[in-house]
Amino acid sequence: MINKKHIALHLVPNIFLIPSMPTLTGERLDALRELMKTEDYAIDAYLVPTEDAHQSEYIADCDKRRYWISGFTGSAGFAVVSLDEAALFTDGRYFLQASEELDSNWTLMKQGLPNVPTWQNYLVHNLPAGSRIGLDPTLISVADASQLSDELKASGSSLVPIQKNLIDIIWKERPDAPKDHVFVHPIEFAGKSHQEKLSDLHAHIKSKDAFGLIVSALDEIAWLFNLRGSDIECNPVFFSYAIITQTGSTLYVDDAKLSDSVREHLGSEVIIRSYADVFDDLRKIGSELEESNQKLLINAKTSLSVEVAVGKENVTEERSIITDLKAIKNETELQGFRDCHVRDGAALIRYFAWLEDQLKQGAVLDEVDAADRLEKFRSAEEHYAGLSFDTISSTGPNGAIIHYSPEKPTAKIIDPTLIYLCDSGGQYKDGTTDVTRTLHFGEPTAYEKRCFTRVLQGHIAIDAAVFPTGTTGYLLDPFARQALWKDGLDFLHGTGHGVGSFLNVHEGPHGIGIRIGYNSTPLAAGMSVTNEPGYYENGKFGIRIENVLLVKKIDTPHNFNDRGYLGFEHVTITPIGLSLIDVELLSAEEKEWVNTYHAECLKKLGPRVADCSLTTAWLEKETMPI
Amino acid sequence: MINKKHIALHLVPNIFLIPSMPTLTGERLDALRELMKTEDYAIDAYLVPTEDAHQSEYIADCDKRRYWISGFTGSAGFAVVSLDEAALFTDGRYFLQASEELDSNWTLMKQGLPNVPTWQNYLVHNLPAGSRIGLDPTLISVADASQLSDELKASGSSLVPIQKNLIDIIWKERPDAPKDHVFVHPIEFAGKSHQEKLSDLHAHIKSKDAFGLIVSALDEIAWLFNLRGSDIECNPVFFSYAIITQTGSTLYVDDAKLSDSVREHLGSEVIIRSYADVFDDLRKIGSELEESNQKLLINAKTSLSVEVAVGKENVTEERSIITDLKAIKNETELQGFRDCHVRDGAALIRYFAWLEDQLKQGAVLDEVDAADRLEKFRSAEEHYAGLSFDTISSTGPNGAIIHYSPEKPTAKIIDPTLIYLCDSGGQYKDGTTDVTRTLHFGEPTAYEKRCFTRVLQGHIAIDAAVFPTGTTGYLLDPFARQALWKDGLDFLHGTGHGVGSFLNVHEGPHGIGIRIGYNSTPLAAGMSVTNEPGYYENGKFGIRIENVLLVKKIDTPHNFNDRGYLGFEHVTITPIGLSLIDVELLSAEEKEWVNTYHAECLKKLGPRVADCSLTTAWLEKETMPI
Repeated sequence: MINKKHIALHLVPNIFLIPSMPTLTGERLDALRELMKTEDYAIDAYLVPTEDAHQSEYIADCDKRRYWISGFTGSAGFAVVSLDEAALFTDGRYFLQASEELDSNWTLMKQGLPNVPTWQNYLVHNLPAGSRIGLDPTLISVADASQLSDELKASGSSLVPIQKNLIDIIWKERPDAPKDHVFVHPIEFAGKSHQEKLSDLHAHIKSKDAFGLIVSALDEIAWLFNLRGSDIECNPVFFSYAIITQTGSTLYVDDAKLSDSVREHLGSEVIIRSYADVFDDLRKIGSELEESNQKLLINAKTSLSVEVAVGKENVTEERSIITDLKAIKNETELQGFRDCHVRDGAALIRYFAWLEDQLKQGAVLDEVDAADRLEKFRSAEEHYAGLSFDTISSTGPNGAIIHYSPEKPTAKIIDPTLIYLCDSGGQYKDGTTDVTRTLHFGEPTAYEKRCFTRVLQGHIAIDAAVFPTGTTGYLLDPFARQALWKDGLDFLHGTGHGVGSFLNVHEGPHGIGIRIGYNSTPLAAGMSVTNEPGYYENGKFGIRIENVLLVKKIDTPHNFNDRGYLGFEHVTITPIGLSLIDVELLSAEEKEWVNTYHAECLKKLGPRVADCSLTTAWLEKETMPI
Repeated sequence: MINKKHIALHLVPNIFLIPSMPTLTGERLDALRELMKTEDYAIDAYLVPTEDAHQSEYIADCDKRRYWISGFTGSAGFAVVSLDEAALFTDGRYFLQASEELDSNWTLMKQGLPNVPTWQNYLVHNLPAGSRIGLDPTLISVADASQLSDELKASGSSLVPIQKNLIDIIWKERPDAPKDHVFVHPIEFAGKSHQEKLSDLHAHIKSKDAFGLIVSALDEIAWLFNLRGSDIECNPVFFSYAIITQTGSTLYVDDAKLSDSVREHLGSEVIIRSYADVFDDLRKIGSELEESNQKLLINAKTSLSVEVAVGKENVTEERSIITDLKAIKNETELQGFRDCHVRDGAALIRYFAWLEDQLKQGAVLDEVDAADRLEKFRSAEEHYAGLSFDTISSTGPNGAIIHYSPEKPTAKIIDPTLIYLCDSGGQYKDGTTDVTRTLHFGEPTAYEKRCFTRVLQGHIAIDAAVFPTGTTGYLLDPFARQALWKDGLDFLHGTGHGVGSFLNVHEGPHGIGIRIGYNSTPLAAGMSVTNEPGYYENGKFGIRIENVLLVKKIDTPHNFNDRGYLGFEHVTITPIGLSLIDVELLSAEEKEWVNTYHAECLKKLGPRVADCSLTTAWLEKETMPI
């Protein structure tokens, strides 16, 4: 699956979106402006970001404040409401969608086009000098707030953190915060007890002579305490904060979410406090730290509200050690990745075999019908716990819309004469999957085959790469593109992202891609990362071939400079799709790779689908040597 | 040829250097310390960098101050003389050489080893707090001086620029500054008149609303005025400065160096002033700029003395536009590159044929004898104007010493049972060459062949790469290493550097390599760059295969996102060396590359060496299809 945040860096003009009616926002804006003008606030503008208080990539319904105030439902955007203007900033992927969803109260700011300011520049240059700009400090990261404050100096404007979210005050029908139960992620899947993980953190905090560490990213808390939840769709996390000190730990989570088994699992050493108590506690910690040399460790993604509560002088910003620790999977997690991907592959080929058969029989199926059937196959597999993201099931031109997710009633009928792209994944107790296959159920054109094969060559180049320790995914990224480049082709997203272990399908800090940030974290043994080069032709088709890889040590014949060498193990086990391969274009080594991979698919999946002759026949056909 | 500055980033332990007697430096240090203590200076330490006033990579004899005060002759190092200690800082390439060359007055600081400070850290932590640290401000760049001043704040020490160089005062037998004639680089080779180049600069300065631009890098001045000189060995440059304003230009160069033809070439629009006058003029400009909003443009490599003369408040630092303009060769320069490389290739194969024949006949030749013969062949070629760097002619283990340059009487006899590495280049009026070939005149081992072939695969991967505009050499670098990595091999230097057009063999701003700086300049059509992966095994052999490439537009079948695609044209024409190729390791495409390249060599070089049956036979043998 493509990392949406990643793609957000690029302009992928999108002309195939679904027409929709604008939401009428006049009353909402009036109510907000009334509040802004009150003596309590007296602000000239109010910022409404997309993110939640934990800087989550996916957000719960109660946090969809920017959707509600603007009517725009895209996943990336930023709203600025001043007393006489309302501006919605988004990027090229969403220009058409936003123009259809916004009513006339809003000005659409098409970021990336010439002469369109960023929202930061807009605050500096389009608002009157000396403006008071209000925002909920839980919804902006320390790093972004600090940069924004610097930029605002140019116009003498100031950022005014307002504790109570103004949208929440006026949003009468706002959904309740999720109250789903938290459950234990047992050691048989986690591989390491939460006591050991906490112990590592205590040692880290001591080594830094710090007071403690605040954890606000939801997947970090879930990983740290070996707990999971379902507060956010497709992400098995739960709303919480944690404060870890040199010797103790406090988990802030609503009492109602905790069962006896969770309390028993946490034991008496983890103090449990209410989610709402965290800021009071941070203020107390802050006043105690005034008297000491010690600091609270935060990271760049921690929200401004934490810094405000503790006091800027009492925090030290450092790279999140939990993100780094979480990225290196232990042996149990690695085995879980292997196991769940084989089960996931079995479900996927049952689906592909069924779909091909249906289409050959002339069945009329739309993209959603198909995705639903895939979900059904997945849900029958052991340890299944839901989808890891909304399935991308797209026919023909829809495949070129990288963030496409089909919805009734606008989903298209799958056309067997066009390329079908399916990017999907499941959450299993023993791991998270993310796989893309691009198939053609009829006769692809020579051009479609050439494009597909160029993508495949990039996929193989990454899969087969060997590289010294210290190498980053930034430097490996060109391997995924070199074959496409020879034809003058390319793709405008990264090549791969980390994958959680029964956690978020996108996780850092590493990745393979063109973002310079990926040059800060070398790939290391035990990391998971996707390998998903693609090629997209607007209005025609999309191609992507995605496996999940594990980084492992490679026993090279030599070991120059004692650096140690690394390579990949693919855990995704699903045939690539023979009908789109232009065999003539492949080197002998590439053909061997395809045949070896398909032999592995046949061996690992064959026994699992033996009950279904249709699937077995499909598997045998799709794994024939080329 | 390897960029020495580049390699300086790495530790290449070197255990094969030549023993030599230390220079006795006691009297020199006494004299320096006497001066340091005088009331005029009253400094606690004096810094002696390696660089000259123009931050040149190669320096003239009169500028070898660090050599003279320390006795250490390596190309990289930094000397700090305090009242009671003398410390010489150098890197792993030079530990053995420095320990042999330094006498007991000196402490060798082995940079890169644990607990050894950098010279900057040494100034902060090893000198008493509040020290006055003297240095000649012409010998340190603005950027380095600024960083150093910041670091010194920790110890309350200060940098004291002293206009008169203290070494020059005490160095009685210091050689005179070179007084060689400057000569015109005619339009038939330069391709663009200096008037046009100046006109581009005037426009740039106007666009920045700046007063003017100071040029202090010698190759930039030579390029700008279409002049060449011979003040520095192998670098056709001359000591000078230039100040360009919105409408005028002044060249600071010693009168005695200029012939009538040079004066005529420059015309009346270029004001000529004495080299020594530049700082007086800068001071005058500085006092005039006090009254205006305009600034003098400098770049990070400009010396501190310029900033001191003009006044810090009157300068603006920006990337050197001349370096950027110079890097893009015009059509005449590109054709010159092609032409001189064919002549250079003819000279090189005459040499290789002669050498192989001599060795087969049992002749005893040392590395210097061989290099001298190569120089003789080169000097017979049209437009020849000298070597572009000291020839690296190395047998067996000496090939693993990346900066090795043989000297009588320590040069080794060439052993025909070992690998022979030859990295050499010529200056021609129409271009500069830089080529490495690694040959074996007997029976190489299977391991030597495998290593060589891995290097060759990297060389081919760069040569054949196609990439979108905007791609940097930093991102292409892994292509050169991927085949080596598969065997657990690597090399500790960059893959390529820019090459001047009858100018310095190393020029920026681009390159292919692991230095993050190479990620700041995308490769662009018209640039020259070397392609020189290698592999080195200490005590055994060195392998490097180097061609000069020109970046050119590639007409790809498609042009995704209208970015335009680039690739390379190799201009170096010399057979690769068949005896070291392990044909089994090559893919079909790689074999085809070798055969196509060798067919090109036969076609282009055959007619040029037809007069010599020995060379013709060698060429035919070495270009046989594999």
